[in-house]
Amino acid sequence: MATCDCDNILPQGSVQEKHYDNCRQVWAERQPAFLPLLKNEDGTIRLINKNVLDLDKDVLYHFSFTNKSIDLQAEFGDVKFVCTGGTASRLKEFALYMAKRLGIPADENIKDWTKISNRYSMFKVGPILAFNHGIGIPSMTIAIQEAIKMLYYAKVKNPIFFRIGTCGGLAVEAGSVVISEWGLNGLLKKSYDLPVLGNIYSVPSILDKRLAQEIQLVASESNNNFKVYLGGTMGTDDFYRGQGRLDGPFCNHTEEQKNAFLRKLSDMGVRNIEMEATAFSALMTEAGIRGAIVCVPFLDRLHGDQVTTPKEQLVEWENNPMKVVGDYIVKYIENQKQ
Amino acid sequence: MATCDCDNILPQGSVQEKHYDNCRQVWAERQPAFLPLLKNEDGTIRLINKNVLDLDKDVLYHFSFTNKSIDLQAEFGDVKFVCTGGTASRLKEFALYMAKRLGIPADENIKDWTKISNRYSMFKVGPILAFNHGIGIPSMTIAIQEAIKMLYYAKVKNPIFFRIGTCGGLAVEAGSVVISEWGLNGLLKKSYDLPVLGNIYSVPSILDKRLAQEIQLVASESNNNFKVYLGGTMGTDDFYRGQGRLDGPFCNHTEEQKNAFLRKLSDMGVRNIEMEATAFSALMTEAGIRGAIVCVPFLDRLHGDQVTTPKEQLVEWENNPMKVVGDYIVKYIENQKQ
Repeated sequence: MATCDCDNILPQGSVQEKHYDNCRQVWAERQPAFLPLLKNEDGTIRLINKNVLDLDKDVLYHFSFTNKSIDLQAEFGDVKFVCTGGTASRLKEFALYMAKRLGIPADENIKDWTKISNRYSMFKVGPILAFNHGIGIPSMTIAIQEAIKMLYYAKVKNPIFFRIGTCGGLAVEAGSVVISEWGLNGLLKKSYDLPVLGNIYSVPSILDKRLAQEIQLVASESNNNFKVYLGGTMGTDDFYRGQGRLDGPFCNHTEEQKNAFLRKLSDMGVRNIEMEATAFSALMTEAGIRGAIVCVPFLDRLHGDQVTTPKEQLVEWENNPMKVVGDYIVKYIENQKQ
Repeated sequence: MATCDCDNILPQGSVQEKHYDNCRQVWAERQPAFLPLLKNEDGTIRLINKNVLDLDKDVLYHFSFTNKSIDLQAEFGDVKFVCTGGTASRLKEFALYMAKRLGIPADENIKDWTKISNRYSMFKVGPILAFNHGIGIPSMTIAIQEAIKMLYYAKVKNPIFFRIGTCGGLAVEAGSVVISEWGLNGLLKKSYDLPVLGNIYSVPSILDKRLAQEIQLVASESNNNFKVYLGGTMGTDDFYRGQGRLDGPFCNHTEEQKNAFLRKLSDMGVRNIEMEATAFSALMTEAGIRGAIVCVPFLDRLHGDQVTTPKEQLVEWENNPMKVVGDYIVKYIENQKQ
């Protein structure tokens, strides 16, 4: 394995999962600066942070439960697909949509496991866990980090994460779907750069290429009335000037500078701009979890800044990433049964 | 005014508001790299971004309204105090709390002006506008930037912003209240550093010192059963390792390194750690708006990482920042009547 160069070619299935872990191991050895959490032999998450392992009780504060207040293995041990995104309402909708597709009884009164938190909402439907992460990287990393610990306690095997969301597109039409291959930060680096103890801790923002390709393949076999693209995704820390917009309260750049910047991004292979891609990619890599980002552009940023499309149309477009991820999950489950 | 050096001494009242603007002007001239939005003579917000001024209709996308879909001046023109914080439930609670204190009829069914957005909630009670901003800087800057444009269209005069929130403390006891004097980012700089068009755009994170002192003075005259501190506030982009915690899924530093870092912060004058201070301070400065951050520590980080206090106690402590800001608002209104 020492010569393995397929870090980003991550086949699916039990045998290949092992291969995937081996590739990660090689990759981790090449980049000893940070240590990914490799999975155990049985596919469960391997936590290597001794501080957590030493805890008698672990408070997942923003979810408002602990590893002792809920029997996590009994309630969530069968989770295979973890879906997250910005708003609680959208993720609830996704849970109910998947319940319908999988023939699992569920309605508007579906249990919100983190309701008491007032911060995030979390729903479970069969093998699917759905929770919202709010807007932006700091809000998302809280939810995902607590979810990783939760899935560790639940002894979940080989989970696959999906982030569904909305975005601005670059040379893609509004209402299409973009599956991310990598994340790009505001300084045009493919990494998640987080200050830790006063210094930048940098993790590469590369997504599971094979998973992205599989999702696109399944989408191409569906009768969708929208296009599905693969490409790079810029994740910014601001919606207005941070995405080059001119229409925030503060703006010191010109339209020409904005357009030159967006064209530069497009030339680099960036297909869309949202506010989470870099950190999502990095956390998946660190946790050794397969993850995908599937977003719908609400406008083509090469043609403007403002989202002027009527709300009804936007709500309809928001179904597109759900449909793409839903198709993949259904196909995956069908394949497992064969 | 060319020799004025009182940038951070910002007295209250109409005459001093003028003085305050003059100081800002001097400060802006010293730092031409960015242009603050100075207020107009009558105290209304002066937007200088020509791109916004040129818009026929301005979509405040995340609030799900435009400057044309609501008569903003009629509905919000009398706003004086703008209160924000993380969760929708807390800000609704604050609105109802202030309604009670000011004798304004309001109940659980109070109108949520941004309900359709599914992202933020917004309530109005007399001169008070309350909306939540979610967790972290990117989520907050969206809400605050849209609020600044909203208040511009509403022709609101000399608004004062408050952020109420929860935090970790440094050498202050859980349940006390910390009023921020400045924000410190993860790289130990007193600034909000945002990538714009691929380069860092840096705005100082200094809060209105006089406002902070006034709030503390009013609090000291109340019969509070908690202490109120003034101090620096670190605003981080992550709750776990970004705040030096050891108990996230990923951690590459030791307890000794964490403790040394927290002691260093404490020595620098940092009293608490949350996830918004730098950007809140910076946006207030850029907009020429007086702003304050009033937070309750849920634990002293010098003694641990996990929030183990029972939920009921935390909920009670969350009332402390509301009480402090509420006392200030009531006092301010009483003074205006005299």
